[in-house]
Amino acid sequence: MTDIAIIAGAGGLPAILAAQMPQKPLIAALDGFTPTGLTPDLHFRIERLVPFLNHLIDQGITRVCFAGAVQRPVLDPSLFDPLTAQMVPRLIAAMQSGDDATLREVLNIFTEFDLKIVGATDIAPHLTPGPGLLAGQITDQDRNDAMRAATITAALGAVDVGQGAVVQAGLCLAVETLTGTDAMLAGVMQIPANLRPRATRGLYFKTPKPGQDIRIDQPTIGPQTLDMVARAGLGGIAFQTGGVILLDQPALITQANALGLFLWSRDDQGQP
Amino acid sequence: MTDIAIIAGAGGLPAILAAQMPQKPLIAALDGFTPTGLTPDLHFRIERLVPFLNHLIDQGITRVCFAGAVQRPVLDPSLFDPLTAQMVPRLIAAMQSGDDATLREVLNIFTEFDLKIVGATDIAPHLTPGPGLLAGQITDQDRNDAMRAATITAALGAVDVGQGAVVQAGLCLAVETLTGTDAMLAGVMQIPANLRPRATRGLYFKTPKPGQDIRIDQPTIGPQTLDMVARAGLGGIAFQTGGVILLDQPALITQANALGLFLWSRDDQGQP
Repeated sequence: MTDIAIIAGAGGLPAILAAQMPQKPLIAALDGFTPTGLTPDLHFRIERLVPFLNHLIDQGITRVCFAGAVQRPVLDPSLFDPLTAQMVPRLIAAMQSGDDATLREVLNIFTEFDLKIVGATDIAPHLTPGPGLLAGQITDQDRNDAMRAATITAALGAVDVGQGAVVQAGLCLAVETLTGTDAMLAGVMQIPANLRPRATRGLYFKTPKPGQDIRIDQPTIGPQTLDMVARAGLGGIAFQTGGVILLDQPALITQANALGLFLWSRDDQGQP
Repeated sequence: MTDIAIIAGAGGLPAILAAQMPQKPLIAALDGFTPTGLTPDLHFRIERLVPFLNHLIDQGITRVCFAGAVQRPVLDPSLFDPLTAQMVPRLIAAMQSGDDATLREVLNIFTEFDLKIVGATDIAPHLTPGPGLLAGQITDQDRNDAMRAATITAALGAVDVGQGAVVQAGLCLAVETLTGTDAMLAGVMQIPANLRPRATRGLYFKTPKPGQDIRIDQPTIGPQTLDMVARAGLGGIAFQTGGVILLDQPALITQANALGLFLWSRDDQGQP
């Protein structure tokens, strides 16, 4: 019997992680978010978090791994059990300080139940590539745009906003906010051509915020990101080495090459 | 005969300024951008900037006032006269450093022709209101959101990105980039309700970037801004006292009250 549970949100990451494990893990899905490619063993709701945690412990679980995308769930006051209800004040206080604070508080509650938090990258280190150009070619202009984007995301990260930016010829076309990558790239698609610098291509740069806990809140690049980057007329994606998960590297590299995009794991020195 | 020319872009500001002047000014409109409510005396193109500046001087113009919205014009190489062509390298170098640098270089060229730059707020100081709540009511949550937005725009302004942000219950819903206010507010309208904090309203905060030359690049709030803020489900607009032009204050106040929005000229101390 396994001692590890995957706390699963939407997307393909939970199934990829489950496939890496020597024993089949317990899959617990947050109600309303369906992982793709595997069937959850059980669903849970935040309003009944304490009974859910007790159930995990009864099942012999000692480690949990958060994987997949979740959005702020809407809570139904009528569904709370008495023990979870006692935790509402601290959850609400955390929610008012932002998403990062909320996630930290959720982690605290899990660890108070003696559940150890395991990062997806601990289970599957190859999901976060080392530095290198994985697909395509980059120019000096791309290097300059990546440096400018890193400066912008550092400034934004310091005020707990976003984890990405689109830069073309030094101009910032968009920055990521709580609406996420897809909304940002959809916005870039709508920019009139006459507002975009000519004779350049631009890039999407992605990085964790400083202080973002990538054990539970993993910036991820998947096939849809690549498609939207291509449709937005950009040249490719640069991401901070070590901070971003690529869901299926070989498939993404093939896709990037087919779309004529670069895929660049960029370290703090701007290499390679 | 007047000694002042309004270098007019789109929108209502050129007509409002012209109406404030004791003598009818010369109205010169950048080709492709039509001011509303007045008829330009002449049109000019960037490719023929030197002949245009010489013409202004021949007409007895000694002062120019930039007013109205322009976007980066597309230059047609076949239209350059020889003298303006000599300025192309410095203009292109400036364009590569961003919009602020380009505007500074344009100002430099005007001043090299001994034309004095006059700010719209020098002609009509009442267009930029002092601190105060002009319409509606604000809550402690609105004050907190405005403070958070001011922190975010200061961080963004330091890296020369944007001059506004939308904040609701401490969460940043959007920041302004080169696509401008309308694109940002249109994006906020598209945010799914479940991603927005509940039981709060949020606000749009507008401020010049540090180093932005408000003599030529004036952040402006007009009736369309108010309409879009209302459609985005926000509670109102806070703007930095002294840094933002209100095109028609009495009309905007009436409109804000009709829409149930607040309109708050907020000074650096967060007053009133």
